Order: sequence, then C-alpha cells, then structure tokens
Amino acid sequence: MNTPKPFQDYYSPQHSICFGCGSDNPSGLRIKSIWEGEEAVCRFLPQPEHTAFPGIVYGGLIASLIDCHCIATAIAAAYRAEGREMDSQPPIMCVTANLNVSYLRPTPMDTELVLRARIKQTQGRKTVVACSLFAGEEETARGEVIAVRMSVAFAESHK
Amino acid sequence: MNTPKPFQDYYSPQHSICFGCGSDNPSGLRIKSIWEGEEAVCRFLPQPEHTAFPGIVYGGLIASLIDCHCIATAIAAAYRAEGREMDSQPPIMCVTANLNVSYLRPTPMDTELVLRARIKQTQGRKTVVACSLFAGEEETARGEVIAVRMSVAFAESHK
Repeated sequence: MNTPKPFQDYYSPQHSICFGCGSDNPSGLRIKSIWEGEEAVCRFLPQPEHTAFPGIVYGGLIASLIDCHCIATAIAAAYRAEGREMDSQPPIMCVTANLNVSYLRPTPMDTELVLRARIKQTQGRKTVVACSLFAGEEETARGEVIAVRMSVAFAESHK
Repeated sequence: MNTPKPFQDYYSPQHSICFGCGSDNPSGLRIKSIWEGEEAVCRFLPQPEHTAFPGIVYGGLIASLIDCHCIATAIAAAYRAEGREMDSQPPIMCVTANLNVSYLRPTPMDTELVLRARIKQTQGRKTVVACSLFAGEEETARGEVIAVRMSVAFAESHK
C-alpha cells in the first residue's frame, strides 16, 4: 500500500509558509494530516521547548495543532465532496473563524500526540470540524473549529 | 514613574519554562503582561516565522498569546483580590480549562499587537477572562479563557 500524500503537501507555495502546517516554514510545526476512513488523523511529537509545566505540553501548541489539523481537514473534505483531487483546479482554501479548545487533563510530554478530526457540519461556506487529541489512549483535549471557505478569487491570489 | 514588573516575572522557576510566558524558555514567546487600570495589557511583535499567509499572522500564535495573557491576568487578579503582592505566599496558579478565539479579520505582520484582557466573572475556582487583540487601532481577534485555580498543594509542588 502506498503511503498517502498528506493534505498539507498539496498546499500552494504561499500557504506553505504557515507556521503550523506549512512545509516551507523551517521554524514551524510542519504538521501532516491524512485520511483514515472518515477521520483525518495527524500525529505529532512535541519538542522539548513545547512545555507548560515540567512534563506537560503547552496548551498553545495544542490549540495550534487542533486549528491547523481541522483547517486541513475542512479543505480536504471540500475536495472530497466535489469528487476531485487536492491538486485539481480551482484551489480550495479555508481560514479559521472560531477555535474552541477544552483542556480535559494535562497532556504529557514524551508521547506522540494523535489528533482525530471529523466533519461535524457543512453549511454554505462554513464547515464545523470536531477534533480530539489523544496522548496514548487518553483523550486530553477536545476542540472545534469553524472553517470558512475563501472565494476562488482569494484562493487564486494565494496560489 | 517606575516600570511595573510584569506578572510573568513573578512566576516560579517551574512555571517559567512555559513556551508562551516563561522567562526561562529561550525558544518561547516570553510574553509580558502588566496592569493598566482594570485591564491587563500585553504587547507582542510577531516574528517573521509567525506567518499564516504572506503578511498575515498565524492564528495559532494569536491563540497562544490570548491563552497565556489571560491566564496571567487571572493569576494577577487573584492576588489583587486577596490584597497581596504576587511574590507573597502561598503561590497562586491557574490553568486553562477552555480557550475560545474568534478571528474577526486578518491580523497583519510588522505591527505590534496589543492584547487587552479583563476579568469577566469569578466563581469559586473558575475565572472567565475576556481579551481583545488589536493590530494598531483595529481589533482583529477576540478571545475568552476559562481559568481554573489550582490547589495550594499543586502550586506549592510547582514552586
């Protein structure tokens, strides 16, 4: 089985400088998201500097991961809904209107984090994406993102 | 007039490694918050890597700034409510239960961001902190944090 190409690797050069998900931002998180059935999954190993308290992952990192993974999921789902590949034209681009994260318990360092996102609702240009973040078997944070699809003109100007 | 000492400079060594607000995290954002009357204010200049699209600040950075600034505000307000200095004992520590950020419009790079937070509600161990983020005169994001005060035993163990 071929390894699927992550959503972010289809992004345009201008989108690829995003701190969270851009492949071309050397200081960034460079997260990668793929489909696993109806869920989009992202795996991320926090780096030593991503601490809140000793041994505990920084909440702002968790918010960043949820934000970027959910936006990538909204974009990938929009291509899927139109029955076309992510490298087809015209480009689809979404931005975050609202990010809501609940921190359920401390997230431990030294553990690969797994984010599982799914489309909750789509209405017009808005898509609501729900996401859970797991450290091992434990769900430590839960988030929701309202993604707004940009106009083709905007997306074209950021190709 | 003396320059006020930022809230974060009172944090314990263990709290000072936080990626967002710790003075001792060399890779972190090292934000600083001070009172201006009833508002707590934080000023932050995004660095070149903190991009979403070209010229636009990364939303995860905005979430991180709002999170850490609001938590610092909740902590400072708790000391203030008890009529004591932030270097007095026992230590007060808060963590984030929920972070909600609305992105009102794109936030431009190359502009100092100003976050203005105020206590909205305090009930038992919970404090709700509301925050607006401005780029110049324009409010580009608005957030709310539910901060939960940790037990003295927890705070003591993280002194």
